[in-house]
Amino acid sequence: MQLKLERLNIKIGQHKVLLNIADAKELGVKHGDRIRIRGHESLTAIVDTTDDMIPPGVLGAFVEIYRHFKDWDKPVEVVPALRSKSGTVIKKLMDKKPITQEEIKMLVNDIVEENLSDVELSAFITSTYIHGMTDDEVEWLTRAMIDSGDKIEFDTHPIMDKHSIGGVPGNKISLLVVPVVAANGLLIPKTSSRAITGAGGTADLMEVLCSVEFTSMEVKEITEKVGGALVWGGATNIAPADDKLIRVEYPLSIDPYYQMLASIMAKKGAIGADNVVIDIPIGAGTKVPTIQEGQKLARDLINLGHRLGMNVECAITYGSSPIGRKVGPALEVREALRVLESMEGPNSLIEKSAGIAGILLEMGGAAPKDHGKELALETLRNGKALEKMKQIIEAQGGDPNITSDAIPVGKYTADLFASTDGYVIEFDNKWIIEVARVAGAPNDKGAGVAIHKKMGESVKKGDSILTIYAEKEFKLETALTTAQRTNPIIVEGMLLRRIPGNFGFQ
Amino acid sequence: MQLKLERLNIKIGQHKVLLNIADAKELGVKHGDRIRIRGHESLTAIVDTTDDMIPPGVLGAFVEIYRHFKDWDKPVEVVPALRSKSGTVIKKLMDKKPITQEEIKMLVNDIVEENLSDVELSAFITSTYIHGMTDDEVEWLTRAMIDSGDKIEFDTHPIMDKHSIGGVPGNKISLLVVPVVAANGLLIPKTSSRAITGAGGTADLMEVLCSVEFTSMEVKEITEKVGGALVWGGATNIAPADDKLIRVEYPLSIDPYYQMLASIMAKKGAIGADNVVIDIPIGAGTKVPTIQEGQKLARDLINLGHRLGMNVECAITYGSSPIGRKVGPALEVREALRVLESMEGPNSLIEKSAGIAGILLEMGGAAPKDHGKELALETLRNGKALEKMKQIIEAQGGDPNITSDAIPVGKYTADLFASTDGYVIEFDNKWIIEVARVAGAPNDKGAGVAIHKKMGESVKKGDSILTIYAEKEFKLETALTTAQRTNPIIVEGMLLRRIPGNFGFQ
Repeated sequence: MQLKLERLNIKIGQHKVLLNIADAKELGVKHGDRIRIRGHESLTAIVDTTDDMIPPGVLGAFVEIYRHFKDWDKPVEVVPALRSKSGTVIKKLMDKKPITQEEIKMLVNDIVEENLSDVELSAFITSTYIHGMTDDEVEWLTRAMIDSGDKIEFDTHPIMDKHSIGGVPGNKISLLVVPVVAANGLLIPKTSSRAITGAGGTADLMEVLCSVEFTSMEVKEITEKVGGALVWGGATNIAPADDKLIRVEYPLSIDPYYQMLASIMAKKGAIGADNVVIDIPIGAGTKVPTIQEGQKLARDLINLGHRLGMNVECAITYGSSPIGRKVGPALEVREALRVLESMEGPNSLIEKSAGIAGILLEMGGAAPKDHGKELALETLRNGKALEKMKQIIEAQGGDPNITSDAIPVGKYTADLFASTDGYVIEFDNKWIIEVARVAGAPNDKGAGVAIHKKMGESVKKGDSILTIYAEKEFKLETALTTAQRTNPIIVEGMLLRRIPGNFGFQ
Repeated sequence: MQLKLERLNIKIGQHKVLLNIADAKELGVKHGDRIRIRGHESLTAIVDTTDDMIPPGVLGAFVEIYRHFKDWDKPVEVVPALRSKSGTVIKKLMDKKPITQEEIKMLVNDIVEENLSDVELSAFITSTYIHGMTDDEVEWLTRAMIDSGDKIEFDTHPIMDKHSIGGVPGNKISLLVVPVVAANGLLIPKTSSRAITGAGGTADLMEVLCSVEFTSMEVKEITEKVGGALVWGGATNIAPADDKLIRVEYPLSIDPYYQMLASIMAKKGAIGADNVVIDIPIGAGTKVPTIQEGQKLARDLINLGHRLGMNVECAITYGSSPIGRKVGPALEVREALRVLESMEGPNSLIEKSAGIAGILLEMGGAAPKDHGKELALETLRNGKALEKMKQIIEAQGGDPNITSDAIPVGKYTADLFASTDGYVIEFDNKWIIEVARVAGAPNDKGAGVAIHKKMGESVKKGDSILTIYAEKEFKLETALTTAQRTNPIIVEGMLLRRIPGNFGFQ
């Protein structure tokens, strides 16, 4: 069937076209079927149907399809296409039948090229979420993710990297770990994510100081020049399947275990990492509630690293409280820079950063066994880490002379006060993040929360427990209401509840 | 946030809106999140984002959303919405956690009201496909499906119904069963489907003779007037969730067992059926390959019927060959009408129709036990079934004086000839259906296949094995090529292969 092209300027995240229902019937295709379009380039698209938006004789092409054509006035030839082979692979995964490395490679390529519909992607995610994957399948998935995107090949080795499983507010340690490691002569090209459900990922933070959007070639150049980089992975085309999967996992509120393993390790594999430390925060509210689960995750990551030729160590860390006392991009960057400038700052932040950096320094041979943390603390103390951070900021197009005090934070602030003397007996990470998000983080860089009282600390009635920062007044108000309603930090006296002596004896 | 409404004339099958990415960021929502729109009516929609098709300040509303508004010039107030509660239910199903009747009711209502995204629907389908459902869950799902659509309440009882699991080409028996049952004084308001992957559903067939699109109120009136109806279920709003589920199951090529049970029985429950016969064709190529699976399905249907207060019997039938010798709407109607007119026709069709009708006559008390089939054959023979069919055709707006000879079939025909003397040793239902579809069925009513030789029949070289009918010449050609390529009917001599005597002894 010959059809005229019409552009539908919607990025729909899939290779999709819109057909008039009459043409669809004539072609014998339905919503969700595929057609083959023979134009300047031959390609396959998933069909949506309409009875009026597109007239008969016209092929409505969403952005992903339309950009493949050049001569838009020329009609295209359209024929029904066979079901995608990836559909057969997904069906096998639903039925928990074995699949081959070739099949998983095809599937990942189709995901990256947006050849799968939401229905198919969701069935894939749900199936692997339910059935899990074998070690072989996880390895193949990881390799396919590596191969479907950009790879960086460094001339010098070893290449160091770190990753945090996340779930803890204020986890700004990469801003300290990367300069410490690079200052000791090791290469650490760190790609990070932006926050999806959090108040600020490392990329959101670093963006306060400089650009974070670079191609993988630029990441290589920056790293070779100054030893380290702190960039947003999403701009690099490294392991691009991950973003496509998150697009489906996010509305389902799931983070399937084996895909998490694959996506973490694919990012490390694609930059040619030799030594990797993975930070696994555990505790209520994190992604890994118990130490047992943390140990299983560590074993699985180490095993997968081994299969891929990477040396992986894991650090199980305390995740029930925020790291440091600031949550939200600008506030966190201030807190991290102050440590680099003067070693002033919360113990939780300095201890954790030095601990993780220390493992990397030992793995990379820059420090003898059991002396890595010592060297990391020394590198923070003697100003070399600050010096390195300035070089990284400059290499990424920022102002190397920026100081922590000069970073602007939200001008609208409000406090939450203790209504009684006592101690912090409950501290809810989830609601701290939510308050920061409602205040505008991570989009409004200056928005966030400063925490004045953490778990177990003593409080006097009328003390400020936390301060909310916002760039916009109406967001401050909603955030304050959220904080008052959810009460993320609970203070009570030591005497929690009085049980009357005659209870049960009446 | 105040936004101007703009209509996007695409039926997308979901309550969806399109936001400029800047507005989405400002609202703090992403692709797949939900927003609450406060206008003349307050409703929830799933967000898609664009960076250019919709400018900031505008809310692009797809048809499903737009039709809820009246004053389109008035801006609407938009706020982020919580995740749908159905999302939480789907998550429970993924994790195989127990759910309540209330939860499944909410989920089905959200499905019917198109409040779920493709991602969510697919996760629901995939989860229940993998985990299965408990008897309670299937009953609740069925009840929720019944309650979410129209129900017919008859004053007279019993109400009879039949259903076929499908998968066999040419299964036109409802065109005989319904008039036979109605002619014996029982009410049988039969709703049927159109073909999804077949060459013609009962609704596609009946449409050759008269209209099949009626509201449930009209179905009630027709049935009360003439005793029976043969209509398309899709027009009635009876158990409407089914169509929404099929929309997702179809691209995944799955037909999840427990949803099949629920959707069959919901349609019966919604019309108040008291006695139901379910035809379960078994054999290679059908949906139920073995008799063991057929028996399990029968038990499950009978059990579910019992829970819903319906009397269900099942008939396990031979499904490896077509019923009768014609496949495709007009050809099948001709074949069925000829039986009604003169009892001329294939034994497989007459035997099966009389058998199923006989069970219904016994269940409804119109025939003594073991005498139903006899009465059914007699009703066919004495012309009462033909008379009743004419009344039904007339009640549904068709010409009651139509005769089988007067029904037009495709004017382009081609034959497939036997290349050797021998017997039909293989007969592939799937490819027979495919050839009929490629020829134009079920959309082109006159298209289809007439089968001259069935399994085991003897054939002379040069005999026509099948004739393809088409309304359009180019479709005939493609169908003929498909038939020649796939060779759905294989003829060989009795001596299939000669094994040389010295094989293995060299």
